[in-house]
Amino acid sequence: MSGSEESGAGGSQTLGELGEAGVLKDIFATLTTTDSVLVGPGDDTALLAVSGPVLATTDAMVRGRDWLDEWSSAHDVGVKVVMQNLADLAAMGGVGTGLLVTLIAPGALPARWARDLTAGIAEISAATGVPVIGGDLSSSDGAVAVSVTALGEVPGGRAVLRSGAEPGQEVAVSGSLGRSAAGLEVLRRSGTDGSPSGRHTGLGAGPGAGPAAGWVAYHRRPDPDLSQGPAAAAAGATAMLDVSDGLVRDGGRIATASTVRIDLDEAAIGALAEEFVSELGSAPALDCVLTGGEEHSLLATFPVGTVPPGWTVVGHTAEAGTAGPGVWWRGERTTGGGWDHFGG
Amino acid sequence: MSGSEESGAGGSQTLGELGEAGVLKDIFATLTTTDSVLVGPGDDTALLAVSGPVLATTDAMVRGRDWLDEWSSAHDVGVKVVMQNLADLAAMGGVGTGLLVTLIAPGALPARWARDLTAGIAEISAATGVPVIGGDLSSSDGAVAVSVTALGEVPGGRAVLRSGAEPGQEVAVSGSLGRSAAGLEVLRRSGTDGSPSGRHTGLGAGPGAGPAAGWVAYHRRPDPDLSQGPAAAAAGATAMLDVSDGLVRDGGRIATASTVRIDLDEAAIGALAEEFVSELGSAPALDCVLTGGEEHSLLATFPVGTVPPGWTVVGHTAEAGTAGPGVWWRGERTTGGGWDHFGG
Repeated sequence: MSGSEESGAGGSQTLGELGEAGVLKDIFATLTTTDSVLVGPGDDTALLAVSGPVLATTDAMVRGRDWLDEWSSAHDVGVKVVMQNLADLAAMGGVGTGLLVTLIAPGALPARWARDLTAGIAEISAATGVPVIGGDLSSSDGAVAVSVTALGEVPGGRAVLRSGAEPGQEVAVSGSLGRSAAGLEVLRRSGTDGSPSGRHTGLGAGPGAGPAAGWVAYHRRPDPDLSQGPAAAAAGATAMLDVSDGLVRDGGRIATASTVRIDLDEAAIGALAEEFVSELGSAPALDCVLTGGEEHSLLATFPVGTVPPGWTVVGHTAEAGTAGPGVWWRGERTTGGGWDHFGG
Repeated sequence: MSGSEESGAGGSQTLGELGEAGVLKDIFATLTTTDSVLVGPGDDTALLAVSGPVLATTDAMVRGRDWLDEWSSAHDVGVKVVMQNLADLAAMGGVGTGLLVTLIAPGALPARWARDLTAGIAEISAATGVPVIGGDLSSSDGAVAVSVTALGEVPGGRAVLRSGAEPGQEVAVSGSLGRSAAGLEVLRRSGTDGSPSGRHTGLGAGPGAGPAAGWVAYHRRPDPDLSQGPAAAAAGATAMLDVSDGLVRDGGRIATASTVRIDLDEAAIGALAEEFVSELGSAPALDCVLTGGEEHSLLATFPVGTVPPGWTVVGHTAEAGTAGPGVWWRGERTTGGGWDHFGG
């Protein structure tokens, strides 16, 4: 499915030349399937065997807004858009059971781009064991967008909502914070395509090597440990979500839904920021941890003493009090930055 | 939720000014829900109680390609994009249990447009009893697209695929054929917005009155009888789909999947075309019935004598023979026209 498998004129073929049937054949040709897929792609709908209530979520990426072609390949986009959806399932304590993928693109889009997108989707599908069960192709006048719906189920039978946190609990994160934002910052500063051969402006080791390369890679293909979602549910997590818009903003969502106050721990946040300080500077490093989005690590609350192994405690909950629910940092309420799709 | 409920400055507010939270609040404020929705919009995912295997399908509409603002309101688009998805469920013998809606739009889009879209979605959701359980909003640089995923289940426990037709069966349609295409043709010829007050070019009664107005209305908001899907499954339909790309092309899909030949009945097709002849002329009328898409009536095969009441027999199946599977019309194989999103 990679571009290198194309030969001769095929390498410059467009989606329009390939045609809808050709695109669909390409896209669904080599994908993972499972025994639960009773009817897969190719009929009016898919039919999926399930063992209990169904989780369902949807998340899209749009070229020029959610990714730049200079910084992210089609393969990157495929991995990332699926991972964003699977992280939402994990954040309920769930695991994926099926994916539906919609590609909106102009006929002039190189077929190679669509194939590389598919290769990314196929890779993450195989790695996670979540099959693509359906999809749609729609033509546009130029815009390129990939919309994914993920279905799942809750192995433990208990979905963890955002609303279950109580005062006096620990707030913990399942993995890194700020790596995706640090990677984006590195790309912004370097002005390169982030590849080892790209020119850069003498910024440390540049995006092509060292830890910065790892952040760029994480920005392009976030790799949160999805198994921590069911693990947290089993450990008794009281509230959970994945960090898609930044610790402060997503923490605020738990605080609001649960009517609690979250006090962030300055030492813990500082320790997480340490990774970024030498490359980015102290204040940007802290910004990455507090407000960096697209990380997709899980943020959850636990009764004291029940935080699972491998999680990092970053704060605690308290009564909302007269100030109301919210996130406190260094003794003050903060709303952080984070991304509003419409800037409102 | 209608535009008329806005007052003063609100009438010219954009999506960007309203903000993502405001848009989501608007969109999910007044929607139908059901007891099966264990977790609705607002958490990382929805959670839906189910009673058996889950049907899942997705279909998108893109402005300028799948609709023109001059001819279709946002309300029309909302109804149509949901109906397209529900028709896919019906075509498996299924009924809807949940919808996920993604809106991709620029910040400059009038908030009124998004509200009218939501009003359309809310209307069809309420009319069919299928709740919106989740969604996503993504910003674009100008493109507007609405992507819907529909979940469902099969009341009778038997999903009807495209592949079950056998030689010697009847081919029947659950409702109209060609009305959506005739409506589109009326809009094309008249060059008006299709409203009663729009100017038109003396084309019969014009789109504003008479049967042509009904076709235009059907093109904007197709209204197939979704209950015919489960009814056909119960009656023993051997293969089924909904007519989205035209009788010949969709019939060809059943023929190919089932390895049969479908012979269309000239008298039956002619009778269906009669409705359009005086307004459009004989050849275009026949074209509407044979190749008109977006009708979403159901096309199914049945053992002889088991076609349900209200269905119209339009042909029969035969051995594919050496010529291979396909659709025959007036003694010749035809591939019809129909819509390829990428013109391939």
